Order: sequence, then structure tokens, then C-alpha cells
Amino acid sequence: MAGSTAPRTSQPLDTEAMLSVSSRHAKSSAIRDLLVHAKRPGVISLAGGLPAADLFPTERLAGMTTSIVSDPRVLQYGLTEGEVDLREWVAAHHSQLGGPSYAVDDVQIVSGSQQGLDLISRVLLDPGDVVVVADPEYLGAIGAFRQRQVDLVSIPVDAYGIDVPVLEDRLSKGLRPKCVYLIPEFHNPTGTSISIDRLTMLARLSDEYGFLVIEDNPYGQLRFDGDPVPSLASLTANVVQCRTISKTIAPGLRVAWMVGPAWLIDAVRIAKQSADLHTSTVTQRMALSIMSDDEWYAAHIAGLVPHYRERRDALSEALSQMLPEARFNRPSGGMFLWVELGDGPDTNKLLPLALDEGVAFVPGAAFAVSRAADQAMRLSYSTATPETLTEGVARLSIAIRKSVR
Amino acid sequence: MAGSTAPRTSQPLDTEAMLSVSSRHAKSSAIRDLLVHAKRPGVISLAGGLPAADLFPTERLAGMTTSIVSDPRVLQYGLTEGEVDLREWVAAHHSQLGGPSYAVDDVQIVSGSQQGLDLISRVLLDPGDVVVVADPEYLGAIGAFRQRQVDLVSIPVDAYGIDVPVLEDRLSKGLRPKCVYLIPEFHNPTGTSISIDRLTMLARLSDEYGFLVIEDNPYGQLRFDGDPVPSLASLTANVVQCRTISKTIAPGLRVAWMVGPAWLIDAVRIAKQSADLHTSTVTQRMALSIMSDDEWYAAHIAGLVPHYRERRDALSEALSQMLPEARFNRPSGGMFLWVELGDGPDTNKLLPLALDEGVAFVPGAAFAVSRAADQAMRLSYSTATPETLTEGVARLSIAIRKSVR
Repeated sequence: MAGSTAPRTSQPLDTEAMLSVSSRHAKSSAIRDLLVHAKRPGVISLAGGLPAADLFPTERLAGMTTSIVSDPRVLQYGLTEGEVDLREWVAAHHSQLGGPSYAVDDVQIVSGSQQGLDLISRVLLDPGDVVVVADPEYLGAIGAFRQRQVDLVSIPVDAYGIDVPVLEDRLSKGLRPKCVYLIPEFHNPTGTSISIDRLTMLARLSDEYGFLVIEDNPYGQLRFDGDPVPSLASLTANVVQCRTISKTIAPGLRVAWMVGPAWLIDAVRIAKQSADLHTSTVTQRMALSIMSDDEWYAAHIAGLVPHYRERRDALSEALSQMLPEARFNRPSGGMFLWVELGDGPDTNKLLPLALDEGVAFVPGAAFAVSRAADQAMRLSYSTATPETLTEGVARLSIAIRKSVR
Repeated sequence: MAGSTAPRTSQPLDTEAMLSVSSRHAKSSAIRDLLVHAKRPGVISLAGGLPAADLFPTERLAGMTTSIVSDPRVLQYGLTEGEVDLREWVAAHHSQLGGPSYAVDDVQIVSGSQQGLDLISRVLLDPGDVVVVADPEYLGAIGAFRQRQVDLVSIPVDAYGIDVPVLEDRLSKGLRPKCVYLIPEFHNPTGTSISIDRLTMLARLSDEYGFLVIEDNPYGQLRFDGDPVPSLASLTANVVQCRTISKTIAPGLRVAWMVGPAWLIDAVRIAKQSADLHTSTVTQRMALSIMSDDEWYAAHIAGLVPHYRERRDALSEALSQMLPEARFNRPSGGMFLWVELGDGPDTNKLLPLALDEGVAFVPGAAFAVSRAADQAMRLSYSTATPETLTEGVARLSIAIRKSVR
């Protein structure tokens, strides 16, 4: 067993690692190999997908854990569906968000949203089923769906989110999806949010054609400007909502949840039991302790927003000044900015040049489903200071000038 | 969504809950419905499958968590394969157990052994594959295998563990399993351990016929008498070992690991990334902090043994005195004792009578794969005091007398 020479470990979990999920694509694999260099000292990485660790409520979490872990019941096997108190909090929270009034049994705790997507895929999807995704799309979702050998149908995204009129056209021509995957706010990788008109249209279509919408909203609480997008659950019953604490509290706890129709949640519960029995009771109680202090938690979220907003502003500003040919929509929240270089360089070929200049990004091709995105790139502003972001764009700009020579 | 009237929550995770995994069997479903009553006040439950919460190292875990959680890196996304330090500890530990010398990359951290079984099933098994299990067998494993639509082939168990000569005979007649599932020590539900002769024979057969052995050993450290069973890994390379902290530290942390051949571990790693990205870094570091203090950890394990041994002794003693017709092998470790009543009552029919007397057990039928176990029952001594165990057997004895009248 010992003695294999090729490195078998993954990179720290990040965009780089997620790329291996879709590694059947030669392009993704090549990108992954290159992005290993994003970890080189001195390289400014705009490639990552991590929240900022300096914004975690570390002190508060550290201060509460001794009392949580002092209760042996917290260390014992727990319920597959998750801790009752936490599910009560989630049910009340989602009931307040608009839509139906949820009961504790409508909630399933999962070990991160990724597990939610995996379990939904396992109970809902059979080989050959049609799943609609945006194009480009979040790699973790693509990976969960692909392992069920589904037929992925991709719909373009623009400044108003996934192009629901295009979906309607496809439906009218006979497309019959089992589900549609939706990141409603601050989509990864494009940073866009769905418009109310399109959301309403999607709800109507889900009723008319009987498909489920998987509403995955990890970034919604990190909103800098404008009004929140209402949950699709206020418009149709054909929706399962996935939410996580990974972007607002800490991903290392691996706590997230799903809220949805009984037929789905009950099936997911059985699958979860076979998958890992239950999510850690210790980390569930840590999450609950943070969130159930309403006043503190609201202040914590409100405190995160200016930091991420400042970083978004710095990156947007630098792009406008130093790369005037770049087209991008300034995201109203979240962690990502999608840049299109028009008839600029192929970003797959640009990446090694950029690494030479000391900056990393993820080429659009990594997120492409069926449409080429070879002139696009995803930039993350979540973990860098404004100064670093500006310097990163300066380096990127040099790389682009060199590439078009 | 609200308004469903039937209860949809599971029982506290326990034998009762695990039964739902195999709920396609009408018998298991009936047993599950009855075992809900094991939670009634005043009922002595010998039905549970939980470790004793009063034996968890609660104080030590509580004392260390503040410093663990104070490091924001522990709260960030982690590696899919698990924390490097923890995998180093595991690799060194398993190298010491005999067998090959393991490297850090041979180790995959999982969220409990159940996830290990689930991930192995997902990457290894296709519909129609043959999987060999003992009969009776642990329900969680059966559940993980069944979801892959495999052909389960069961081999009887006796006082020397799974009957490998019977397996050899089946192999010689053409049986070609993809894997064999083995709980080598203190098997759940029978409490038996495999003999060295049979273990050696199984290793030889795995080499000859090219099947993988899944060696799942959650109870091995809870040994009261006799010598440990060596790992199959000291005899063949066709083995993946699953170990957990659930029975010796605390199940609520959800930390376990797999050690095995690169082709399997690498595939599991990719599946794990899609399944839940990674196991909680917080609970991994808690497990490591406990285990890496060699002296303290050895003393902790040594301290657990007398408690469980005393309970095993009390239950065995009471059975010998009050139910002389009961046949059982006094287990040398673990948490379970398997009782056969010979031509006594059908234990499925006995259960409601026993509940009326205030004692619960799990009828053998719950664990039966293809052989009837209707005169058998599984008794757990892990969580009750010696006095309670004695009283439980007294009540059981009354129920049996009433049933044969």
C-alpha cells in the first residue's frame, strides 16, 4: 500500500478540489493541475471558493463549546433527522421567510448542503432522468447529479439569472425535467440573482409541468445591496430549500438543512440513515447556540456584509479601471464575480500566463456544462484584502496584455 | 407541508431506528412498531445498541474543545480525505497492528463507519453483484449493501464466527462474491469472534478467488477476555479495515476511518467529495486530541473494559440462573449477547408479552438474512447496571413462562 509515488491527496478543499468531481472532462482536469500552483507562495489567488476565516465567529464558538460538550447526551448517537431544537429553529425561521408554515418534521439536518444535494439525487433521480441546471453552474451540484447518470440539460444565465423563458420554450417543445437546480441569489459562478419575474415564471412552470425545484441558497444572507429574492416556496409547493451555515458561521462544522415536501424529506431521511446515521450532534448544537441568539446572530450577519461588500467594491473598481474591456455584473452579494473578456484571450491559455505573473483565477470552462465559456473566468473576492484584490487585477491585466501580443 | 398526522420522526438512533433500514421486511416493520414501547417508562430495554454515555470521556472532551475551536483554520473547509494529523495517527496505529506499513494516503476519514460502508458500496458494488454476509447480520451493513441492489448471500455463524468452510464449499461450487463483510470480533448481533483458523482460511480464499473483505471492527477494543483477533490485513492485501471512535470515545462526534488498498481508497475519496465534501474538522480534531495522548487513551480504554465486563457477567449469570434452557455464548467483549431458546417460544410473539412484563429485546428475526431466527433474540448489556440486567432477565423469564403455558 505504501510506496505509490503519485500524490493522492486532494488540495485543501476549494475550487481546485471541487474540480476533481467533474474530472471526466479533460479540460477540468488540466485546469485542476494548473490551479495547484495557485497555492505557491506569492500567488494572489482569486480562484478560491472559501469564506473568509477571519470573519468566523471563532471566539463565540470557542466560548460555548465546553458547556455543549459537557452534556454526555450530546456525545451519544442522535436522531437521523437531526436535533429537535435545531429543527424547531429552522422550521420557525423558514416559516418567517414567507411561504408555508413548516413543522419540525419538514426539516432534515444534513452534513453540509453538498450532502443535501447528494441525498436528493439518490432518492429522486434515476439514470436518464432530465435535470435542468444553469450554464455555467456550480460544480458540486453537477457532480451530485452526474453520479446518477442523469441527462443534464443546461439553460443560459444572464444578468437576471437563469433564463426561464428559454426553459419555457424547451418545456413547450417537450422537455420533461424531473427537477430544476436553482441558486437564486449570487449564483456560483456567475454572481447573478434571479429576477422576480423569472422566479414567478419558474414557479408557474413547476406547477404546470410537475417538476421539483432544488432551491440551494448558501449566499443569500451575504447581501450588499437591493432586496432579497423571496423563496420559491412562497409561490409553489414543488420546492425543496437547502440552506447552510457554511458561509455565515463556519463550514468546518458541516451543518446544513433541507426543508421540503414530506414525500421527499421522508425518503431523504431513510437515505441519510444508510448514508451516515446522523450529522454530528456536537456541531449541530454549536450551530443552534449561535443562531438561536437572534439579536447576536443578526448583528453577526450584519457585521459580515460590509467586509464582503468592501472586497466586492475593490475588485469591481480595479476591474473597471485596469481592465476596461472586461464585462461583468457587479454582484449584489455573495463571493463571486464572473468576468467575460469578449473577444479576448482563451482563459484556459491565459491561466498559466497569469500564474507566471502571480495571480490565479478559475477559467470559465471549469463551470461550463454544454456551452463554451472559454473567454470567461470566475474571480472570488471573499478572502483577500482590497489592496490584494487590486494588485491581483493589476497582475491579471499584465497577463492579458502579454497574451494578446 | 404542515398538517400530516402520522408521526414522521425516527426513534432515538438505536436498534429501533436501524430496523427501518430493512423495513421492506414486514417482520422488521412489525418489530419496529413494537420496540417503540421499549421507550416506555419502567421498561428495561435490553434492545438498545448504544454505548454507555456515562463512560464517555466527557470531561476530557469538554476541556479540550475551547482551544481546538479557537483556531479559525479548524472552522474552515477541510480536506476530503480528512485532517493530515489524524490520518498520520491512524496510519501509524494500523501499521502497529500488524500487516503492511500504511502511509497517510492509505487512510480516509469518514463520518462514522456507516458512511464507510455506504461509500464502499457506492464505489464497489453494482446491481446483481454477490455480497457475502453472516446470518444473522448487522442491519446497517445490510442496508448499505441492499441499496445497491446486490445479491446478498448469507453464511451461518457459530461460536467460531462466520462459517468459512461453508463459504469455501459455496466458492468451490461457483459462488463469485465481489466482497465479504466481516465483523471479526464481538459480532453484532451474535457476540461471536472469528477463530484464527477461519480467519486464515478466509484470507487464503480472498487471494484465491479475488474478493475484497470489508473488515468492520467497531468493538475490538472492548475485549474482556482472551487474545485479540489479528487483522486480516496481516494475511492478505484484499481487505479494507473500518474502525470507529463511536464505541470507545463518543458516537456523537461522527468520526471513523477506512484503511485499505489505493484503488479503493482513491475511489472512495472521490465519492466522499460528492457525498459531503469532508467530515467535520472540529470533531476530527477532538478525536485526535483524545487518541494522540497514548498513555491517557490506553488508560481510558482499559478503564472501559471492567464496566462492560461486569455488565456482561451480570447478564450471563442471570441467564444461567433464571433461564437454564437458554443457549448462548458468553461474548469475550463488545456489547451484545445472542440467546437461542431452542424449541422455546417464537421471539416475535414473545416480545409483546415481554413488554407487558416491562422488558424489551430485539427478536432474532430482525437480523435474519435468509435463515429464520425466530427462536433467537439479541440482548444488549451495554447501558444497564448489573442490578437492572438481573431484573430484566427475571421479567424475561416470567414472559417466557407465560408464553409456553
